[in-house]
Amino acid sequence: MLFTIDRDSLLNKLKIVEKVTAQKGNVQPVLSNVLFAAENNTLNLCATDLDILVKATTTAAVKKAGKITLPAKKLLEIAAKLPDKPIEFSLNEDTNIVSIVCGNSKFEIIGISAQEFPKTEDEIKEGTEIEIDLEPLVKAIKYTVYSAANYENRNVISGVFCLIRDEKLEMAATDGNRLARIVEKINNKNSQNAKLIFPSKTLNEFVRICSYISEDKVKLSVDKSKITLRTMSFSINSKLLDGEYPPYEQLIPKSTVNSVKISRDDLILALERVSTMVNERTCFVKFIFNDNKLMLKAETPNSGTSEDVIDCEYNGDELAIAFNYKYILDSIKIMESKNIVIGLNGSLSATLFKPESEENYICLIMPIQI
Amino acid sequence: MLFTIDRDSLLNKLKIVEKVTAQKGNVQPVLSNVLFAAENNTLNLCATDLDILVKATTTAAVKKAGKITLPAKKLLEIAAKLPDKPIEFSLNEDTNIVSIVCGNSKFEIIGISAQEFPKTEDEIKEGTEIEIDLEPLVKAIKYTVYSAANYENRNVISGVFCLIRDEKLEMAATDGNRLARIVEKINNKNSQNAKLIFPSKTLNEFVRICSYISEDKVKLSVDKSKITLRTMSFSINSKLLDGEYPPYEQLIPKSTVNSVKISRDDLILALERVSTMVNERTCFVKFIFNDNKLMLKAETPNSGTSEDVIDCEYNGDELAIAFNYKYILDSIKIMESKNIVIGLNGSLSATLFKPESEENYICLIMPIQI
Repeated sequence: MLFTIDRDSLLNKLKIVEKVTAQKGNVQPVLSNVLFAAENNTLNLCATDLDILVKATTTAAVKKAGKITLPAKKLLEIAAKLPDKPIEFSLNEDTNIVSIVCGNSKFEIIGISAQEFPKTEDEIKEGTEIEIDLEPLVKAIKYTVYSAANYENRNVISGVFCLIRDEKLEMAATDGNRLARIVEKINNKNSQNAKLIFPSKTLNEFVRICSYISEDKVKLSVDKSKITLRTMSFSINSKLLDGEYPPYEQLIPKSTVNSVKISRDDLILALERVSTMVNERTCFVKFIFNDNKLMLKAETPNSGTSEDVIDCEYNGDELAIAFNYKYILDSIKIMESKNIVIGLNGSLSATLFKPESEENYICLIMPIQI
Repeated sequence: MLFTIDRDSLLNKLKIVEKVTAQKGNVQPVLSNVLFAAENNTLNLCATDLDILVKATTTAAVKKAGKITLPAKKLLEIAAKLPDKPIEFSLNEDTNIVSIVCGNSKFEIIGISAQEFPKTEDEIKEGTEIEIDLEPLVKAIKYTVYSAANYENRNVISGVFCLIRDEKLEMAATDGNRLARIVEKINNKNSQNAKLIFPSKTLNEFVRICSYISEDKVKLSVDKSKITLRTMSFSINSKLLDGEYPPYEQLIPKSTVNSVKISRDDLILALERVSTMVNERTCFVKFIFNDNKLMLKAETPNSGTSEDVIDCEYNGDELAIAFNYKYILDSIKIMESKNIVIGLNGSLSATLFKPESEENYICLIMPIQI
């Protein structure tokens, strides 16, 4: 293996794949490594933790094809410190040592044979092929994935539900205490439909990688149990979660007894202030709506109390309701609307939070009984 | 106690004192608190971990004098989140609860009686009073304190030596493997002299606090075992270390066999690159000087090697010498000169590092035998 690549391309691709490598202390040392595969002026980088497999592709001046795995964190550290000059990689196939030369800097890194790396071929032979816009998918993930149950198991509620039907993408996640649901318009090139449940980890990784690329289309190849998401410059393979997702639509109230309009910024700042005195065990903040005002209150026994008052549009009877304030901040911080609308159905019923300017996103949060 | 203060003053003073409070889990809860003392339109904040006592002073509209202690971290968090409006503090002396009101925000914080706070009076009754410029003192601390022995005991080499004589300030620190020494010109208002050994912790705290103030004079009140450093806006009290500081002057070579001139930036960047492959147990990087070139080499067994070549002015015989690269970076990163000069006395002798443009600063580093 012998190739030359520019520093920025290498660094960008290493950032895409590096986070997927298994952490220190894993049983197979090769899982801490990135697979380098050079052929036909193309360099493929590949990393996996056995749950997710990420491939990144870039052009490189390949003089001799070949494959080797190299330690991901070390390579990233080196690439970040090299000057912005061409970098030459050459592999000694007898010793698995890769010589990396850039300007006056030279490294010899001991690799692990590519033979030991898990297989990287696409396993999806017969499945549905869907091509949609990248942007609404990334948005829909960001607006829902935080609501998925935060434990690492194979239960469907640790994942995110996704329905692609015609020109509509619907995603939803719930951990039993809150539900986030979004519907986005998409261009669905092949008019293929799909209903699937993504592991949250796969989606978080996908969104992270998308911050390093500038593309606008993504292809999904789906079969019964696996998915590949692919853009021009990278792909991510993952298992899907198996099971029936809870019928969340029936949880969303069709109407609410009262509705409150309130500035998103005011509510965020007031919640952040009041939460300084929140009881860290329960995290609850009391909301008292009355006469176009919202009063927020928190209390830690033996430490003190906090309260804040903000203006809102509310004409109903006085209503006191308590929430885990972190759920509220998670949900309203990602909204882009100046004002948000809170739909109330009494102090014991699930409460709707939605951006004033957008009909297709809602977050439903269960109150805490006080 | 009843006073009003503006948000920025409060936040600034809390930042000055907050770091000195004792960490969680300390035996006396009051040591996590800041003492608030309001009187005659002056607010004094005070914090101590029993080693160091820091006081910060600011003006406030005091309507009723009084004292209370309040949790430092909580107060800082609250002040940082409050809007930029006047803040009113009022103490209920029966309950020790302080009500903090700012705009529509209100907090009630349970304090601990000021009676429980360690005494805060200045203990230095008869001592030397010295007034010097703040800037050269801060510089001299930054240029030496990193070389002090990094263990928390009362040994003098865990401290920094300081000699004030006429219009000269000399500071030095050594941990046995390296020595840093600086001589700065000062205006010494009262022509008072002093020779003392500061605990490193006191100096680190002093430098940190100086980043929050904009003053140019500092007064030192020194007696046999204690010191107070005082500016217009804050003071810090500390014990001094007792003992005889090692006679470091005799360690500094009067001349060197060879001297090397090298770009500081080039050396920093090359060392940072090469150090990616350093053996983390020994941290040593080999320096090979030959024919106007410096080659740097590092190696981690079973992982790989690195090398880098940079230009320098060196005409002597080839010389190989190894250093803990962290010591080199510590010493040259604080230098402000474009080029640095390395004074060599063979591969087993202490080596001088100094800025080309400044005669009064040197760092002496012992090589590692390889």
